[in-house]
Amino acid sequence: MLDTLFNHKSIRKYKNTEVDNNTLNTMLSAGTRASTTGNMQVYSMVVTKDESIRKRLWECHFKQDMVLQAPVHITFCADFNRFNKWCEQRKAVPGYDNYLSFFTAAIDALLVSQNVCLAAQEMGLGICYLGTATYNARRIIDILRLPRGVVPVAAVVVGYPDEEPGLTDRLPLEGVVHYERYDDYSPEDIDRIYADKEALEQTRELLEINQKETLAQIFTDNRYKKQDNVLFSKEFLDVIRKQGFMNNG
Amino acid sequence: MLDTLFNHKSIRKYKNTEVDNNTLNTMLSAGTRASTTGNMQVYSMVVTKDESIRKRLWECHFKQDMVLQAPVHITFCADFNRFNKWCEQRKAVPGYDNYLSFFTAAIDALLVSQNVCLAAQEMGLGICYLGTATYNARRIIDILRLPRGVVPVAAVVVGYPDEEPGLTDRLPLEGVVHYERYDDYSPEDIDRIYADKEALEQTRELLEINQKETLAQIFTDNRYKKQDNVLFSKEFLDVIRKQGFMNNG
Repeated sequence: MLDTLFNHKSIRKYKNTEVDNNTLNTMLSAGTRASTTGNMQVYSMVVTKDESIRKRLWECHFKQDMVLQAPVHITFCADFNRFNKWCEQRKAVPGYDNYLSFFTAAIDALLVSQNVCLAAQEMGLGICYLGTATYNARRIIDILRLPRGVVPVAAVVVGYPDEEPGLTDRLPLEGVVHYERYDDYSPEDIDRIYADKEALEQTRELLEINQKETLAQIFTDNRYKKQDNVLFSKEFLDVIRKQGFMNNG
Repeated sequence: MLDTLFNHKSIRKYKNTEVDNNTLNTMLSAGTRASTTGNMQVYSMVVTKDESIRKRLWECHFKQDMVLQAPVHITFCADFNRFNKWCEQRKAVPGYDNYLSFFTAAIDALLVSQNVCLAAQEMGLGICYLGTATYNARRIIDILRLPRGVVPVAAVVVGYPDEEPGLTDRLPLEGVVHYERYDDYSPEDIDRIYADKEALEQTRELLEINQKETLAQIFTDNRYKKQDNVLFSKEFLDVIRKQGFMNNG
């Protein structure tokens, strides 16, 4: 298990080998063993294999090739719909149409997703998280017919790897861990923490290709731009509201 | 690894045995191997061992005994502070003061937290998630001195178990998985999905103790009440705003 954790790589090329139902059920069951708030399990996993639906999802996920290639697409959703229905059928009045409930359900869904991914990797499958699930939540809701009370928070593709990438770089542990309390970063800390990343051959290539002076500029100007973030922020908050999670009193 | 996933139990009683630094570093390093959006690693882990600080955290976490008992307390935070500082030192203008960026960073922090917990369990440690991290985020920010750009999204206690609880119940897989698209639940589905949970001896005891007619009422009336959810919703949204993540254009 430690090996699986330490050898995690996102896979972006897949064989067209099917994932059999036993393997799939093992992954999904591993997901259900994750801790959830009050053991309420306020999440759902939507497993999509159908090509025509996957093609529509691919459009939501910026048309990344791997979304078409990988035979299995799983959308992890914050889901209070099932729990609310249960309450209503049991003479209980649910009070879960608010932001805290959304966030609680999102935590559930995300911990479950990581279990599913690790189980998949343990069984020789590859996975890749699609950060785009929240960007285009509204279209995903439409495609997957998610009812009120359900919001997609993560998506992954799953399949047999058709590449063997190396481990990607990480910041040194001291860069992301604080002891006792948060120790804010001095300019020297920042220089030291990002030094190895900035010195990578890959970084030099990116600067060359993108014609930028610093790696940080590639993030701010090309990859994760303010104007996109602002647009997706409004969109996602609106989706959370429309799915019934913004009645905060 | 599959065993670790399938045998996960939350531990609520701890020995006062210390967790050595090698073990702790292995857990934290396993955390850093999790996928993060664009490999930005926009999270921080605050590891608190100091008793007086843990005592203050215990107050935030509804004074649950285990928070005082367990020798290690880890607060997982959405953190754009470090990344923003890096951008500013590298002639880049960060556009991450919005809700999407908060949510992206929260996803990072939560996937990391699950890796840390699984690594801990693999090494014989016990863990328990504290759902209260978001409820009292404002006080945690104060205690841990979290700067602007940093929001706690999950907390766990870690230590050597002083109990051996059995596995807790879960809804059947069909209750939380949908194929192709979301299949909304009929009243019969709800009855079937919750039948085993409702038939547990533990459920009968809870109904007796709480003098309630249905298990759902224990959730809505006692454990996760609308009035609390509404209060914590307002609080948490206000914290997200104050930490600088609500400039949505």
